[in-house]
Amino acid sequence: MNLTHPYFKWDDLFNLWNSTIGIEREALRIDQDGNLAKTPHSPEWGTRAQQPYIQTDFAEAQVELITPPVVEPKEVLNWLKASHQIVATTNQQHHELLWPFSTPAVIPNPRTDIPVAKLDDPKEREYREYIGKYYGKDVQLLSGIHYNFQINPEVMKRRMPDQDTHIDRHNEVYMHLSRNYYRYRWLLTYLLGASPYVDPTYGTELYGNPHKTVMRSIRQSRYGYNNKEDVKISYDTLESFVEDLEYAVSSKQLSLQKELYRDVRLRGGKEARDLLTKGIQYVEFRNFDIDPFSPYGMSEEMLKLVKVFIITLLFMEDAKADGVRLGDERSREIAEEDPLAPLNYLDEAQMLFDAMKKVAQGIDEQSGQKGELEQVIDGYEAMIHDVTLTPAARVVKEAQNSDGFLHFGLKQARLFQEIYLDKPYLLHGFEGFELSTQDVLKEAMRHGIKIEVLDEAENLVRLSYKDQNEIVKNGNMTRLDSLISYFVMEDKVATKKVLNDVGIHVPQGVNFNNLDQALHHYSQLKDEAIVVKPKNTNYGLGITIFHHKPDQKDYEDAIRFAFKQDTDVIIEEFLEGTELRFYIQNGDIKGIVERQPAQVKGDGQSTIHQLIEEENKHPLRGVQHFAPMTYLEKGEAERLQLAQQGYTFDSVPSKDEIVYLRANSNVSTGGKSIDRTEEVHPEFKAIAIKAANALEANFCGIDLILRDWTMPPSKENPYGIIEANFNPAMWIHRFVGEGTPRYVGYEVLKQLFPEVPFH
Amino acid sequence: MNLTHPYFKWDDLFNLWNSTIGIEREALRIDQDGNLAKTPHSPEWGTRAQQPYIQTDFAEAQVELITPPVVEPKEVLNWLKASHQIVATTNQQHHELLWPFSTPAVIPNPRTDIPVAKLDDPKEREYREYIGKYYGKDVQLLSGIHYNFQINPEVMKRRMPDQDTHIDRHNEVYMHLSRNYYRYRWLLTYLLGASPYVDPTYGTELYGNPHKTVMRSIRQSRYGYNNKEDVKISYDTLESFVEDLEYAVSSKQLSLQKELYRDVRLRGGKEARDLLTKGIQYVEFRNFDIDPFSPYGMSEEMLKLVKVFIITLLFMEDAKADGVRLGDERSREIAEEDPLAPLNYLDEAQMLFDAMKKVAQGIDEQSGQKGELEQVIDGYEAMIHDVTLTPAARVVKEAQNSDGFLHFGLKQARLFQEIYLDKPYLLHGFEGFELSTQDVLKEAMRHGIKIEVLDEAENLVRLSYKDQNEIVKNGNMTRLDSLISYFVMEDKVATKKVLNDVGIHVPQGVNFNNLDQALHHYSQLKDEAIVVKPKNTNYGLGITIFHHKPDQKDYEDAIRFAFKQDTDVIIEEFLEGTELRFYIQNGDIKGIVERQPAQVKGDGQSTIHQLIEEENKHPLRGVQHFAPMTYLEKGEAERLQLAQQGYTFDSVPSKDEIVYLRANSNVSTGGKSIDRTEEVHPEFKAIAIKAANALEANFCGIDLILRDWTMPPSKENPYGIIEANFNPAMWIHRFVGEGTPRYVGYEVLKQLFPEVPFH
Repeated sequence: MNLTHPYFKWDDLFNLWNSTIGIEREALRIDQDGNLAKTPHSPEWGTRAQQPYIQTDFAEAQVELITPPVVEPKEVLNWLKASHQIVATTNQQHHELLWPFSTPAVIPNPRTDIPVAKLDDPKEREYREYIGKYYGKDVQLLSGIHYNFQINPEVMKRRMPDQDTHIDRHNEVYMHLSRNYYRYRWLLTYLLGASPYVDPTYGTELYGNPHKTVMRSIRQSRYGYNNKEDVKISYDTLESFVEDLEYAVSSKQLSLQKELYRDVRLRGGKEARDLLTKGIQYVEFRNFDIDPFSPYGMSEEMLKLVKVFIITLLFMEDAKADGVRLGDERSREIAEEDPLAPLNYLDEAQMLFDAMKKVAQGIDEQSGQKGELEQVIDGYEAMIHDVTLTPAARVVKEAQNSDGFLHFGLKQARLFQEIYLDKPYLLHGFEGFELSTQDVLKEAMRHGIKIEVLDEAENLVRLSYKDQNEIVKNGNMTRLDSLISYFVMEDKVATKKVLNDVGIHVPQGVNFNNLDQALHHYSQLKDEAIVVKPKNTNYGLGITIFHHKPDQKDYEDAIRFAFKQDTDVIIEEFLEGTELRFYIQNGDIKGIVERQPAQVKGDGQSTIHQLIEEENKHPLRGVQHFAPMTYLEKGEAERLQLAQQGYTFDSVPSKDEIVYLRANSNVSTGGKSIDRTEEVHPEFKAIAIKAANALEANFCGIDLILRDWTMPPSKENPYGIIEANFNPAMWIHRFVGEGTPRYVGYEVLKQLFPEVPFH
Repeated sequence: MNLTHPYFKWDDLFNLWNSTIGIEREALRIDQDGNLAKTPHSPEWGTRAQQPYIQTDFAEAQVELITPPVVEPKEVLNWLKASHQIVATTNQQHHELLWPFSTPAVIPNPRTDIPVAKLDDPKEREYREYIGKYYGKDVQLLSGIHYNFQINPEVMKRRMPDQDTHIDRHNEVYMHLSRNYYRYRWLLTYLLGASPYVDPTYGTELYGNPHKTVMRSIRQSRYGYNNKEDVKISYDTLESFVEDLEYAVSSKQLSLQKELYRDVRLRGGKEARDLLTKGIQYVEFRNFDIDPFSPYGMSEEMLKLVKVFIITLLFMEDAKADGVRLGDERSREIAEEDPLAPLNYLDEAQMLFDAMKKVAQGIDEQSGQKGELEQVIDGYEAMIHDVTLTPAARVVKEAQNSDGFLHFGLKQARLFQEIYLDKPYLLHGFEGFELSTQDVLKEAMRHGIKIEVLDEAENLVRLSYKDQNEIVKNGNMTRLDSLISYFVMEDKVATKKVLNDVGIHVPQGVNFNNLDQALHHYSQLKDEAIVVKPKNTNYGLGITIFHHKPDQKDYEDAIRFAFKQDTDVIIEEFLEGTELRFYIQNGDIKGIVERQPAQVKGDGQSTIHQLIEEENKHPLRGVQHFAPMTYLEKGEAERLQLAQQGYTFDSVPSKDEIVYLRANSNVSTGGKSIDRTEEVHPEFKAIAIKAANALEANFCGIDLILRDWTMPPSKENPYGIIEANFNPAMWIHRFVGEGTPRYVGYEVLKQLFPEVPFH
């Protein structure tokens, strides 16, 4: 077949592939038995903000998950992963699941028990009530997927540079696409139709109960969303479409323009007539059943198939009005067939696959991919020869009737729920970001704040709400902090000076790069605990701690010992006690954790080796940077630390004995964080806040060493601030090893976006 | 001799050395003939701000340069270097010099021609007029150096922990020091006295004309600042001192307490009585002549000698009231001796030196220095045996009478002026900072803004004015910029996105890490100039520029060529033209420079090698980072660049031919900046400002490539922003290779400190 387009060229394939797509995926919330969820509309996943990702649909128990427009199918899937995770987290609290089919298996009786979405707008409420009466409430429980497609404006501009005729030609490109879509979408009905069963009591006001209990797609049959047959809409030209639609409304066939149920919706204006002057912005293809074999309703392959299908249609001969009628009939026919009925239109299907493969090859080549898309098309091509490979056929194999349907649906729902809830500290689909950024992004999504990735490798994202834009790096580096505050905290010398100046205790130290000078410093020592250490040390080698002023020989030994490790040696006041991390934001404490070094607790039987293996099964432990707690290791540092306690990895500690594997308490080396936010004495909180203020930091992590956090600081309960962090880790508060989690990502957004209605 | 102190211990020497010192150095401004400068008080170097570094003294022609209190003599010298440079820069504009002696060589006749400092305070003016009448105006032309000393409060606190008796004991320590200073300062008069001559018409109202034309120190003789003999002040106790001083004022012997002229002034209260309750804060030793052999009036050795001398006095037996009287007489006697008269009190001098050496050794040892201070003391000890080594003797050797005195003084003044003005782009004494920081510090000093170094290696300084503190890094990284704006500018991908979003042109590019994908990209090329380049390149290897869409073979060759250099290759829109750097602050353009690559201009005779040598003599050229322009090099990159033009270093370019040594225009590789601030078309300025605003940058350097800066941007005059810098270099505008300098350091402070009265 000849693939040409009056405006586009074959070389445009690459740029046409760069067109944006977006998904709106509906789903029913159900309880563990498959009944509609009865929990009310929860605003937590239902904001209707600038870019709502998750919203409640017609029925109260129906959610709609919406992705922003992006180019790559993989990215669409990432958005779906994230929003499914967020919805599932709330569902989990109510013991609810997402029903993985387009058609409901259980419809409440009487139908008045179907909870209607509580909408604020009385007009909208009235419209929905009318629809519920006119078409029946059952239809409102159908869930589908809408696939939005915008032809890359760059290509449009390049190929239609003439301003005067631009809009008309632009609209004609979209009308041509729409007609061809109607003409050939039956192929998608065959390949992707996946709603063979429904609750046996299901029916619609216009078309009654299904005439068969099993068909390829009930949702795409006459028993799906369909207007009365007298609603006639032409797709010949955009003008005729607009006129027909306006007539249908003025003659009361439709109550509103949006009551038109068609598989292609032209988008870009409030009223259809706007499209004539503004131009069609994008098209919404609405004929997709939820795939019960894909956790997110649609797989990456499906997304790719559809995109190639659409681009192919652009290069195919115009189907004209007759083609639209033909296509409508054929799609209905295939939808109402038995799911195991072989394909009737194999030649045309083959022709379409040949065309799609040519297009896929072209895209692969122009983008330098090695047959990636072609493989996907090949995969689907097999289905036209073997109906058992189609999803509808696979469903009837799994579930032989509507009881089996419910059972299979619940099985899939539970399986998917486990997938959605896996690794809750990650934001699914955004695992490439560091943990703090993932937390902030998750909260942004939950609150309808728009997300744009500026540089994933750098954890740099732009968040927007209404007219406000905020760029965020690593979760809490924002406009709220000043550049100089960052440089002061990055500089340990300067940090100490600034804190010291406001009367906060920091360990006093002297730096020596000269052995003689360091040795002579003995006369200057006061009677207090000191640590003598190389400026840089591995595994703590070269460090000596004196709890009282040492005698001169011991001191000199310590100095010489340290100089063996480094050319610079520090003599510093030694602070004894527990290390607390205060997470401060805008002058407030948002979380305090105690940081404990990597450790295991003996059971009197297991070796340290075994205890480590066991502890590493903790759900929060994982690879460094990719989990809130890092796997315990059995390296050199751990071996040395054990040796100091007289242990090896094969030793068996007694019951409840704590064995430390590390001297340092960093989470990155297996350390553990324990929430102490409520327990710490207010005076220590005040000191941490004072430190953050002195550093003029909005976000700040203060590391404080103290003896007893339940008592105020005193001569007997000394303390010292050992570090201030400009980008304090968030996950050590959000996903604590023990204690109450603190929602620090949420707090970031609350301050950044005062206008967002937080909940 | 026995060195002990009732409170201090020998181990305190190290901490006593850590006492702070500060210098107030007066100097007469003179014209090229030695007459008093007639230019009026210039506020540029005369602010009386929180911490005035440079202020006008009694006479209009007299400046006073004041250092902040610091520990190390070297640091004091650094402050003096800086303030001398600033004063000298203004002096240069008026063809003035600083007179390098304590005594004037030329006094205006009649004396009414001596310009009096114009003071705002009428009381102060009145007082000075009275003083001028009572003591004579000549005395007011004497210039000296005051040496402030504060005993390290740490030592005081450690040795006098008892709160109740603390103030009394604290004051007694200072009184003991003062008495001993009076007792033994004659040694300093001998070692440092350096004002043997004065204008022959010089005289004072109280003591008439000098009875000898030459003496060791006229300033420290009876002809210096002296009260009437009936003013009797006891130093027995602080109480008796206060009572005597109050009596002298109430009995009209003195008009005000500050009219008391003594070599030791007790500091810490508005009125002397305040000291009793507040405690003496520090002492001011006033008996120092300006050393005509030291560019800054005092050398580092002198500063060290005096500090050791003071600390030694602390450990010497109390001289008591009798000692004070004896010391006064002896110092006067030595001051009025012939400069070549050998020392009369050799035994006592030897005793003092032995004590000082012991102290110097003690400090050296406790601070781990290898005899550094001891060597200094040894150097001065030689003078007690050989008078010709003393400065007064050296002066009379150079200048045998007051004519010779004028001549020698002018010679030294000119020599010192050259030192002060050397390398004007550096802030003398602060050369360890990078150039931008030096510029900001210089402006801070000029405007009385206090400076505190937080971390020199990091160019981190704290500036203060009244209650306002501002930390500045690298000259223009401040509180005024947000942390996130920094991270966006640091990230080229994000910068491009942000600029592109607001409609600013940035070169469009694609990154490939895969040869095949890069080769296939050919079909996507538009007909425009592109550059194919390895992501990282040395000497520009692997770069190919196409001015039009290349044919496929050339394109593929370029791709393969680039992949030989790096695993990542960028294909980017190529912008042709000139590179301009816009320096933007707070939405305003503060400077624009054209950046030209390293180059030489032929003279028709010299080889490129010779032209490079010649150009490297340019006063702004120096080692990278330490001069506004970097030395031209003759390395591999230059050789390659010349080879591309068919040259070697031995080629002789024709007259006025410009030969480029580099393709890049960085100042760090010999590039040159030419000021274009006034010439660039306003539309380009608007674009640069828009870019800075989009990046939410207060300080921002925008690099823009364009064809013609005199015309607005257009299709024929395209442009592109290639980079945005969060810490734009300041010196390329302040010290331009050609054109008008822009005072960007000054602008930083103007915005940071709105309350400072800038001039």
